[in-house]
Amino acid sequence: MTIRVLAKVITFPDKLEETKALLMSLIEATRQENGCLRYELWQNQEKPTEFSFVEEWADQAALDAHFQTPHFLDALQKTEKLLMSSPEIVLYQLIK
Amino acid sequence: MTIRVLAKVITFPDKLEETKALLMSLIEATRQENGCLRYELWQNQEKPTEFSFVEEWADQAALDAHFQTPHFLDALQKTEKLLMSSPEIVLYQLIK
Repeated sequence: MTIRVLAKVITFPDKLEETKALLMSLIEATRQENGCLRYELWQNQEKPTEFSFVEEWADQAALDAHFQTPHFLDALQKTEKLLMSSPEIVLYQLIK
Repeated sequence: MTIRVLAKVITFPDKLEETKALLMSLIEATRQENGCLRYELWQNQEKPTEFSFVEEWADQAALDAHFQTPHFLDALQKTEKLLMSSPEIVLYQLIK
């Protein structure tokens, strides 16, 4: 059973473009990782300061490895001062 | 540009199985609708009372039509007494 993830971030309004660019910079490197089956960046239409990554990983090991990659750790550290709250990362399983 | 949707519902603990069955009953009928590109039911691993539909629709018209279908309206009415809060339906656009 693969692991699905919704990772929500809310940026300060005046940091929106900077945050968006930083989140986008994560995508290519992440999609190359072992076990990364889906990694999409969505933006809330009504509240553009809210972004959600919609992800699917082959297993927990692949997700754990992702959290230790240089590009993820770098982005996590850089977004710290851009976000209104820490990222909300929730793991799901597919029901149907 | 297609429309992506995250629709989150949180059920009362003692209504979990009933809610899960009701949400699952929506899936086949919804996937047959015009413009329905993706319609998945996810369950929060840590908090099993929380479900999220992860959806993609061809356009706003397809999504609006979905909200008027008998199966959606029926499920909405039946879940009313099963959920701790009204469903949180958020529209997104894909950034990348």
